[in-house]
Amino acid sequence: MPSRSKVIAVALLAAALASSAFAAESSGPKITDFTLSNGLELVVIPDHRAPVVTHMIWYKVGAADEMPGKSGLAHFLEHLMFKGTANNPAGKFSQVVSRIGGQENAFTSNDYTGYFQRVPSDQLKTVMEFEADRMTGLQLTDAVVLPERDVILEERNQRMENNPRARLSEQIEAALFLNHPYGKPVIGWRHEMEGLTRDDAIGFYRRFYGPNNAVVVIAGDIEPEQAKKLAEETYGKLQPHATIAPRQRPQEPPPAAVRSLTLADARVEMPSLQRDYLVPSFRTAKPGESAALEVLSNILGSGSNSRLYRALVVDKAVAVSAGAWYDSSAFDMSKFGVYGAPREGVTLPQVEAAIDAVIAEVIAKGITAEELDRVKTRLIADAVYAQDNQATMARWYGSALTTGASVKDVQRWPERIRAVTPQEVQDAARIWLDKRRSVTGYLIKDTSPQAERRS
Amino acid sequence: MPSRSKVIAVALLAAALASSAFAAESSGPKITDFTLSNGLELVVIPDHRAPVVTHMIWYKVGAADEMPGKSGLAHFLEHLMFKGTANNPAGKFSQVVSRIGGQENAFTSNDYTGYFQRVPSDQLKTVMEFEADRMTGLQLTDAVVLPERDVILEERNQRMENNPRARLSEQIEAALFLNHPYGKPVIGWRHEMEGLTRDDAIGFYRRFYGPNNAVVVIAGDIEPEQAKKLAEETYGKLQPHATIAPRQRPQEPPPAAVRSLTLADARVEMPSLQRDYLVPSFRTAKPGESAALEVLSNILGSGSNSRLYRALVVDKAVAVSAGAWYDSSAFDMSKFGVYGAPREGVTLPQVEAAIDAVIAEVIAKGITAEELDRVKTRLIADAVYAQDNQATMARWYGSALTTGASVKDVQRWPERIRAVTPQEVQDAARIWLDKRRSVTGYLIKDTSPQAERRS
Repeated sequence: MPSRSKVIAVALLAAALASSAFAAESSGPKITDFTLSNGLELVVIPDHRAPVVTHMIWYKVGAADEMPGKSGLAHFLEHLMFKGTANNPAGKFSQVVSRIGGQENAFTSNDYTGYFQRVPSDQLKTVMEFEADRMTGLQLTDAVVLPERDVILEERNQRMENNPRARLSEQIEAALFLNHPYGKPVIGWRHEMEGLTRDDAIGFYRRFYGPNNAVVVIAGDIEPEQAKKLAEETYGKLQPHATIAPRQRPQEPPPAAVRSLTLADARVEMPSLQRDYLVPSFRTAKPGESAALEVLSNILGSGSNSRLYRALVVDKAVAVSAGAWYDSSAFDMSKFGVYGAPREGVTLPQVEAAIDAVIAEVIAKGITAEELDRVKTRLIADAVYAQDNQATMARWYGSALTTGASVKDVQRWPERIRAVTPQEVQDAARIWLDKRRSVTGYLIKDTSPQAERRS
Repeated sequence: MPSRSKVIAVALLAAALASSAFAAESSGPKITDFTLSNGLELVVIPDHRAPVVTHMIWYKVGAADEMPGKSGLAHFLEHLMFKGTANNPAGKFSQVVSRIGGQENAFTSNDYTGYFQRVPSDQLKTVMEFEADRMTGLQLTDAVVLPERDVILEERNQRMENNPRARLSEQIEAALFLNHPYGKPVIGWRHEMEGLTRDDAIGFYRRFYGPNNAVVVIAGDIEPEQAKKLAEETYGKLQPHATIAPRQRPQEPPPAAVRSLTLADARVEMPSLQRDYLVPSFRTAKPGESAALEVLSNILGSGSNSRLYRALVVDKAVAVSAGAWYDSSAFDMSKFGVYGAPREGVTLPQVEAAIDAVIAEVIAKGITAEELDRVKTRLIADAVYAQDNQATMARWYGSALTTGASVKDVQRWPERIRAVTPQEVQDAARIWLDKRRSVTGYLIKDTSPQAERRS
């Protein structure tokens, strides 16, 4: 389905948004959280401005839960979930959503797999019935599985192999994670995707899909009690999965070596560099540490007032872009990134040295009260504005609840941001922005005679 | 047991020796190869100069067969194999070997786990009985498992954490293999070793140990038929393992990025660099390719006549050492290494540039007939001399037969070396010594204030 062709990117974007804008001000909507007797968690976010609802189901399984040699399987199954059940032949669910004027999409990350529909609120029960049906009733034959494998291979072509920056990120992640499956690409390694089978997909589905491994988030024109009633009438009929185990992935050894890599690609128009550090996620951080990393990433690298932008783009004029980001929403450890692209005539090592100097200054001298206040105010304001979007809200809760956080954790995000001190930000920089925890990737133009052929 | 404290290093050395001297000239001993009805393979190498035999059992399982999160398990089990059975309490086997004046040892690699004894030839049946007994009869309790876990942790301390070069190799391998379990250290990641249990060890043992997953190599004062009779009377009584499956490990994606890393360690006295390339092993190479890589590694970097030594140590005088190596004996892909250590006042990037220049010259201009002849003659002569050592011969066959080669493959090694052409060597350099297939590691002295504490 064309509408699912950007699934992975959407999911990563959602996670990034969630990380910088995890929020629910006390002035926001009242969130209700239920758990059905079969273990399914239901979160309801009322929003009565229009007669529509966003319905999302998030499974607590993603690419990091794949067996070795089966990379891409979580995402492949996401595609195959549209291939029909005994009650609903392939394509019927999508046709119905389309006929009622709705939208749908699906996405896969390392930690979760999600499906969503945006439909008129009086059609909510219909999509819940379809989702409940395919949660346990999926039927797959080679006749539908094998062509879909070609679809995901083509998706890999478009999204990764024809995208130098995506290739760089893939290489950096593979070098950053020495042991944890986060080092594998979510879309999969091509040579492994080529070998994925119906049995692989059904085995993964039976192992991980079930009401007690899912979170349903409904945002929109619905009352909590009514949503709960509909959930009980649909999802509530399913038996809990008997053997869902807590997620336990291989963890990283202590990082020891400063790593770097260079990827040359004929399609690169402008060289750039990206550095990822291995840092804690919200779930794995000590109290306060994840909020300090969020603040730090914003002070260092969000917007034209940030330290990296001011130093590299404005003051030294060595770069045309520079910034930083942090993703707090991972079940296991997470990443903190910095990046920059040199101005004409400037080398990547010069840009890297300028980034290093900015980081060294924060580590040595800390940050000012003024910039801390400014960033806190902006982060919280952005989160308040973002609540205007029903789907954004649903994504915050979905990604939080599938990466080890609770509804309360999401609601307390503004408190945590407000509590960050200058010392905590400086400590976070000193402890976590240690180059031994990082991989620096250079993306350059491949000008070799063979480059044309390779690209 | 103190005698097993160098197991992993011994195994790696054996593999390296095997790779550069895989051999059996027609003038060498007549090798006999049997397979018992339960699937156990038996190789006999007669050597009647002294009344002793070397008895080795090699299991086709190693660290690359461990489940994710259980690194170090193959080696842990190797230690636990000395902990007794219903028939023979812990320590009895070793006591008997010692009482009869024998020696014993054990070793673990990525692809195999082996146990050997060198005993008077009239005691051969005794050690075969013990080995057959512990192949299926191992009994483990927490009382013996948990203290042995402390032993392997201490072994990791001594062998890896107190050895900067070993740490560098560990980091390079982890960065070289993005997907294959060869990227994990054979000894294990410390945080995973700490969690290994009795159940993990017994599960691994039951899954992989059995006569149809083992090769017994006997070198020494024994006739083939007599060895076979003894094997039938001992190992022959065991039932084949019902569920031994062919080894299938996750494979590497095509290498794309030139990678490098720097490890700083306070114990480094002299900086050095090592670069590993991902290349085919004998089993995974096209015909002739592995022999060409062996010849190439010798021309580039074995001895004081090699190109790297001459260029870096003698002519340019930028290095105090420089060389190259290639390990052909891996079940999956293998590694080709180059290394060098700068003279006082020379930097690592200068040494690296000098190595790059030597490699570039071979790629551009090939090698001479004279140096090809010289290296072939020396390789084959070395292999002939090495046959003088009973245990070395046994190791060649054991490592070959557990990494996908046959007795004939070992015997034909001199033919393969003799057949290598200058063009094949140049092609091997051009195809495989591509920097995108490599990780370059710099080892430098850590002079930071925290270094003392970390080391």
